[in-house]
Amino acid sequence: MRGAATAGGDPAQAADGIESIMQLGGESLRGAMARIEEHLERVTSESGVPLSPHAHATVRAGGKRLRPLLVILAAHAAGEDTLDADGGMAVVRAAVAVELVHSATLVHDDIIDDADVRRGQPTVSAVAGRHAALATGDLLFSRAFAELAQSGSIPQLRALSIASSALAEGELLQREDAYAEVVPLERYLRRCELKTAALFEAACRMGALSAAGSPSLARELGHFARRIGLAFQILDDVLDVSGPIERTGKAPGTDLLDGTVTLPLIIAREREATIAAADLRALRGADDARALCERIAATGALQESRERAMDIVTEAKAALPAILPDGRSGMLELVADAVVERYR
Amino acid sequence: MRGAATAGGDPAQAADGIESIMQLGGESLRGAMARIEEHLERVTSESGVPLSPHAHATVRAGGKRLRPLLVILAAHAAGEDTLDADGGMAVVRAAVAVELVHSATLVHDDIIDDADVRRGQPTVSAVAGRHAALATGDLLFSRAFAELAQSGSIPQLRALSIASSALAEGELLQREDAYAEVVPLERYLRRCELKTAALFEAACRMGALSAAGSPSLARELGHFARRIGLAFQILDDVLDVSGPIERTGKAPGTDLLDGTVTLPLIIAREREATIAAADLRALRGADDARALCERIAATGALQESRERAMDIVTEAKAALPAILPDGRSGMLELVADAVVERYR
Repeated sequence: MRGAATAGGDPAQAADGIESIMQLGGESLRGAMARIEEHLERVTSESGVPLSPHAHATVRAGGKRLRPLLVILAAHAAGEDTLDADGGMAVVRAAVAVELVHSATLVHDDIIDDADVRRGQPTVSAVAGRHAALATGDLLFSRAFAELAQSGSIPQLRALSIASSALAEGELLQREDAYAEVVPLERYLRRCELKTAALFEAACRMGALSAAGSPSLARELGHFARRIGLAFQILDDVLDVSGPIERTGKAPGTDLLDGTVTLPLIIAREREATIAAADLRALRGADDARALCERIAATGALQESRERAMDIVTEAKAALPAILPDGRSGMLELVADAVVERYR
Repeated sequence: MRGAATAGGDPAQAADGIESIMQLGGESLRGAMARIEEHLERVTSESGVPLSPHAHATVRAGGKRLRPLLVILAAHAAGEDTLDADGGMAVVRAAVAVELVHSATLVHDDIIDDADVRRGQPTVSAVAGRHAALATGDLLFSRAFAELAQSGSIPQLRALSIASSALAEGELLQREDAYAEVVPLERYLRRCELKTAALFEAACRMGALSAAGSPSLARELGHFARRIGLAFQILDDVLDVSGPIERTGKAPGTDLLDGTVTLPLIIAREREATIAAADLRALRGADDARALCERIAATGALQESRERAMDIVTEAKAALPAILPDGRSGMLELVADAVVERYR
């Protein structure tokens, strides 16, 4: 990580996304991510209970580890240069706690979606049933807070409890708005902030706090991450409409079939009266959903959604140099670019 | 509460259970419970999200508030005499956090059981669907930790995160052992400790800690509560077999139909070979379950189970005077009696 601060913010360098960040971060960043991985492994495998393998398998199946990466980079930006001191352990615990909360929500989501596969692995729900999946999610959730109890940081506890409340509220809001004929843009954005951006924000806040960053720096880095998280969710919603299935792992329009009204549909409804009049409840299956996706795409709504996300990222990046001295903003800018790049 | 310490431990006084404790506790205890109720109301109703009424309704539906009562009485035993000072607010928050975790597990249980009614109210799952119930449980859970973040007590955070992990592990263990032909007694007791006793323990530990009780006193009161929780679960398991439905609100043998092997069945299997040979998977419905309950009762297993629970309570009470000076153990002894009385 010691060399990380010198990395430039040239977007071209981010073409390979997170992998290129890992290269730029060098041995130190790789070492930090490996420590997080080890600790995640330990936290989810140590238990007197035979069924905890489900928790273990869930976390082990991996994923991008984007949130732990944000914790590390925020800690680095706030002045944490090593991960082998006590401060380093606080960073590791914060990163693990954030990933555990994220994993808990995935396990719970799979119950509702009756999903059989996640990250290429069978889901807990499919392997052991809904009951075990429910308890596994609760267990991952509890362990996240247990990690913070070890660190002993009340400000981190506050940040994570706010984010985990927000995740649940975002789910409730999404359910409330399911199949709605009109979803105002502000309400859509609020839902994205709750269900996605809040945990991104917590990741950066907790990273900065574990590096003994000032509360105001933690707040500003949190605000940056919140914007990135919002863009991330918008682009995820674009992918649901644009596909292709080889890239997303699910059929186009899966969210639409669930009645979830996302930005592309909101924009398309404004542009095209027949789409505004379409009832999501009338979609009969994958073919209907794909056809609606094509009509949404034809309005240019996908491009406008992407541009909105890009604008949010550009604005978030532009604010960084003012709050981070010494060129410490480079790696965070690259993460912002990586979020966008993944969806090009 | 100021008069509480003088209350004697005569079991006869506890015949009316928790209500008589409230009478003995007087204005101070009633005031404390009312403050907890108000705070629960506030925590679950304040939210920008339209669907939080589910969280609100869940907690509002009430229940015995046994766990909050334990928090208060442990705080009192540890020296907390008022609930209007700062220390008092820490007690209220601890009690609210424990009840929120308990409520979260009830909401999640109702999803799995497809239960329509709980505490005389329609369940979240029945009113708003499984998805909303899942998120509501997660929200209640998150709010519990948010309460502790407000109090700023790491030892309390540790106690609650251990208990909430235990609850989930207990559920997983129960699932693992479902329909098992042999469940060793130790394993059954371990499950009870995880799914019930751990939260009782956390309640007393957190109460003592919020009254600035010493860590060793918190530990000893926690141990007392753990024993009471174990007895509580055993007696609950007896009720599933003994009924009657007017008292339990569910048909006898409901747990057996779910494949849950409890103490009465474990004892009956030892005493009667035909019961040991019976396969719970072969139970076809309520009539089969009721017939098995009658066969279990005929072995005397219910009486032995009750006696085991009573012995645990007696032993737990006997240890109290040594750890609590000044006759401060009286109210906790009454709670122990109330747990037993409810099941006579």
